[in-house]
Amino acid sequence: MSTTPINFADKFTRFSEHWSPRVIAEMNDYQFKLAKVQGEFVWHSHEDTDEVFIVLDGELQIEFRDRSVTLKSGELFVVPRGVEHKPVAVSECQIMLVEPKGVINTGDIGGSLTAENDVWV
Amino acid sequence: MSTTPINFADKFTRFSEHWSPRVIAEMNDYQFKLAKVQGEFVWHSHEDTDEVFIVLDGELQIEFRDRSVTLKSGELFVVPRGVEHKPVAVSECQIMLVEPKGVINTGDIGGSLTAENDVWV
Repeated sequence: MSTTPINFADKFTRFSEHWSPRVIAEMNDYQFKLAKVQGEFVWHSHEDTDEVFIVLDGELQIEFRDRSVTLKSGELFVVPRGVEHKPVAVSECQIMLVEPKGVINTGDIGGSLTAENDVWV
Repeated sequence: MSTTPINFADKFTRFSEHWSPRVIAEMNDYQFKLAKVQGEFVWHSHEDTDEVFIVLDGELQIEFRDRSVTLKSGELFVVPRGVEHKPVAVSECQIMLVEPKGVINTGDIGGSLTAENDVWV
């Protein structure tokens, strides 16, 4: 067991790509991932799992088909399984995702924004 | 589905008890809990699950039998299942815990610091 704390700010200095989640920790079969996001992501859903978004810096909008939610630093939102959503960040935003190991960022949609899975930082 | 973001600072204004985790969100069968901690907790372990600690404000020490780790704001640590640990905070510290629903704060030990489970804020 390592006794080095996982420091979010330090981890964020180690990558710059947008929409490319990096794993920082595993708990049972769940992963904690950091991501830098900017611009519009794609509409997608995850049929088998809820997904937690936590904003660590900046502001993230999560659009749903009939409404949207805006998250600021220090705020969390749970997107329920099966619900179509599209994250949007006007300016670069730093987020943490919590979800089961193996979840693909674009869910059931795929496409050019699909990031390699299980990349650690 | 609510579209109200869960704001950590707001939730922390709603309770003051130490070592008494409050649930703020559920993702699948996992819960996100906020806690205010100060002083020494009890030695305990969770035989069936890892446990994630995230410090949101202040400083938390997690003692193990042969070492310890100190977490500052913006830092995360995963205590592996079965590993005895004792959280300690010299000054009041605000933390978030992530663990499966049903986990008892004192694990296998019980005692006076055992908090009521599944209390939401």
